Amino acid sequence: MTGGAFARVLPSEADFTQWYDDIITRAELADYGPVDGTMIIRPYGYALWERIRTELDARIKACGAQNAYFPLFIPQAYLSRVPELEGLGSELAVVTKAGGAQLTDPVVVRFSSETVIGEFLAKWVQSYRDLPLLLNQWANVVRWEINPSLFMRTNEFLWQEGHTVHADQDEARDYARRIQREVYEDLMVNVMAIPAVAGIKSRRERSGGPELNTFTCEAMTGDGKALQMGTSIEGGQTFAKAFDIKYLSRDGRRELPWTTSWGASTRLIGGLIMAHGDSDGLRIPPALAPTQIVVMAVNAAVVGLVHAIATEMREAGLRVFTDDRTDIEFGQRVARWGLKGVPLRVEIGKGELDAGTAILARRLSEASKTAVPLPELTTRATRLIEDEQRAMLDAARAERDSRITVVGTVAEAAAAAAGGWAKLPWSALAETGEDELARSGVTVRCLQRPDGSTPDSDAEPDLVAFVARAY
Amino acid sequence: MTGGAFARVLPSEADFTQWYDDIITRAELADYGPVDGTMIIRPYGYALWERIRTELDARIKACGAQNAYFPLFIPQAYLSRVPELEGLGSELAVVTKAGGAQLTDPVVVRFSSETVIGEFLAKWVQSYRDLPLLLNQWANVVRWEINPSLFMRTNEFLWQEGHTVHADQDEARDYARRIQREVYEDLMVNVMAIPAVAGIKSRRERSGGPELNTFTCEAMTGDGKALQMGTSIEGGQTFAKAFDIKYLSRDGRRELPWTTSWGASTRLIGGLIMAHGDSDGLRIPPALAPTQIVVMAVNAAVVGLVHAIATEMREAGLRVFTDDRTDIEFGQRVARWGLKGVPLRVEIGKGELDAGTAILARRLSEASKTAVPLPELTTRATRLIEDEQRAMLDAARAERDSRITVVGTVAEAAAAAAGGWAKLPWSALAETGEDELARSGVTVRCLQRPDGSTPDSDAEPDLVAFVARAY
Repeated sequence: MTGGAFARVLPSEADFTQWYDDIITRAELADYGPVDGTMIIRPYGYALWERIRTELDARIKACGAQNAYFPLFIPQAYLSRVPELEGLGSELAVVTKAGGAQLTDPVVVRFSSETVIGEFLAKWVQSYRDLPLLLNQWANVVRWEINPSLFMRTNEFLWQEGHTVHADQDEARDYARRIQREVYEDLMVNVMAIPAVAGIKSRRERSGGPELNTFTCEAMTGDGKALQMGTSIEGGQTFAKAFDIKYLSRDGRRELPWTTSWGASTRLIGGLIMAHGDSDGLRIPPALAPTQIVVMAVNAAVVGLVHAIATEMREAGLRVFTDDRTDIEFGQRVARWGLKGVPLRVEIGKGELDAGTAILARRLSEASKTAVPLPELTTRATRLIEDEQRAMLDAARAERDSRITVVGTVAEAAAAAAGGWAKLPWSALAETGEDELARSGVTVRCLQRPDGSTPDSDAEPDLVAFVARAY
Repeated sequence: MTGGAFARVLPSEADFTQWYDDIITRAELADYGPVDGTMIIRPYGYALWERIRTELDARIKACGAQNAYFPLFIPQAYLSRVPELEGLGSELAVVTKAGGAQLTDPVVVRFSSETVIGEFLAKWVQSYRDLPLLLNQWANVVRWEINPSLFMRTNEFLWQEGHTVHADQDEARDYARRIQREVYEDLMVNVMAIPAVAGIKSRRERSGGPELNTFTCEAMTGDGKALQMGTSIEGGQTFAKAFDIKYLSRDGRRELPWTTSWGASTRLIGGLIMAHGDSDGLRIPPALAPTQIVVMAVNAAVVGLVHAIATEMREAGLRVFTDDRTDIEFGQRVARWGLKGVPLRVEIGKGELDAGTAILARRLSEASKTAVPLPELTTRATRLIEDEQRAMLDAARAERDSRITVVGTVAEAAAAAAGGWAKLPWSALAETGEDELARSGVTVRCLQRPDGSTPDSDAEPDLVAFVARAY
């Protein structure tokens, strides 16, 4: 009754974008702001972000990084320090007037803080004693978008960016991979119930320069595409060179350190919708849900009881909302909580009041309704929360696996990726395989070792490639 | 031994500003960013902000408000909706270029979100069922500063701003006062150990229009001035009129609601430094301190023991840092933790190892050192943490009271406010009193009832006025 497969009904692929936008509006997650392409994150959407941020932040701190805050405004001259930033011009917002006057030196609005952080790391890193230096920042960033989509691409979004400095290359690589696995993958799998595939990018798809690993977590969306949801980059010594970060080693030499950088954003909320939503709305796994259980009064006579139950459940550590708006039709209210993706409902009406029971039900599922004696309710609800979390992950994993076609050639991969993902030997892609895939709008999402672990480099033997169309 | 008066040594008033800046630099709280007047909040400063934010956020949520997020960019046209904003021009930053082109309509960088929130409240508030609508936002805001000071006045700072809509005036006023007392004053007194004086502003000093209450919390700084650290404003119906916010009442009429707004910022960190710091550096009350206890190894032989003790203390819920850097001179390390304001130290050397004890000490106080048997250490440290919190508040209250002179006339008030605060009957200020004070750079900081509670209006009889020079 509590586990098992989900009857997840999705719109056709053609309607997927419309369905996605509708959910965001109808579940009151977000809205466009008055300036084109900007986003207002409404309380329910922001509660999701707060839960994601809290979970990520705890994992980032467990990896030893400390939070700091760098300014919103960046000197334009800093852009020239990093060659990859030169192409950013079309995404930047520039302040030319401030304090009632034209600025002699216009300033760029933060697109990332990497340049300012680089400047200050050069001051703060002096000796081997200062290493590793592990920083993270939670902030808003601006990248001007021509074709905005709420949570996926907006002119401003919220994210965290981590920047770390290490004395040697292996330590830096291991740290970047640790962030990938212990921060991003762990959040996605164990909190968001999204069985993301973790691996390294191919050279063509790397962010940190062609010689350096980009560690990625890729989620499968309801329309069978891939969404990159958390990225951790080996910076080699390029970043240290660009910002003249040097340290005095134990034996008194000035050395270039090795860096990493990594980030995840409000795009994770887009991923949540696309990975779990169905034709009735959002579905939020209990470990993430701002409200895990809604306790509903069917009529005014049970309002007091409903509040007492909610209090008991809160004391047991559950996140509970009380719905005592008995002047609204009950079915409408159930549909609304289903739309908002609240995992469980408790329903109490006159029948339950008389019988000393409550109905415990999974989101929108008539079949899951069970009458539970009140003294057992909190215990049963707590267990059902755990079951539901596991069931959502199991179902998502089964769905993902059923939509990954194992193939042997590039042509087969391109064909399979029309409706899902394909998996093939990295060696089968050879030198021209990625170009060939690109002609069908398909890219290599990541490379894994055969046992699913993350390789040290794309030169390792026997790697497998996951390919798909991507957001 | 554990309570009692503090020997708080402060610099002369003439050096106070230099002392303030030095503490921020030496304790590694913050630094200026590369764009004039911007601030980098370093990890230790940001850890303080995270603690403040967590404590404020829990209190805001306990008052029923939900967090949301509104965009960084605001249409310039919105400024004309609120007459008070017209004067803001010289503080604004304006984006005129974005996406690689000149913007036809330049956008203003968020100085507060009140205008955008007003626009959207008008959409979201439709019926009496939607009220009260209680929103809060955590964000960065920009106000261009000619004369910056870290944490006190920077071009960009971090804050929260709350905006609420209510069906009637009394409810709105009570809510604004509840935020003043249960959120701001409670944080200041019970977490930050700052005995802020809470009251209402005089008409001359109000923020929300002359007819409406501004509720304020005023802290006394080490140089005897006042610092406004948290403000809660009754908006009356002015804001609702400006943004055309209306609701359908129970009896089917379109009514104007009543609003409140309230905010506190990273300025609270400036207040912490000024309220508690001494000539040795910061002093952070344990309830706020990111690190409550530093466990110090005097030499390499005790490093393992020191880590074991720290683990035990963490399991007991204490926030502990382990200082095992025995290659740095011990006295230097003690001074560094004193500078950073960590309330307690545990010191362990060979003597303690042999005796099965540890030294428990208050910040920089030789006299407070006590040898404690290891099995009792965590219990004793927990108790000392509580004692220290109480002692800091008691000492701050005693110092504050000793520097408030009770007077009867405006002339006496102006004289007393040269070195501290003055308190006098509000009626003694009459119509011209505030102008007279202003000539000595002194203002009315707030009005209270004789019993210390917050009045409903400045027309109540028997109010007392606190006057001081202010930051």
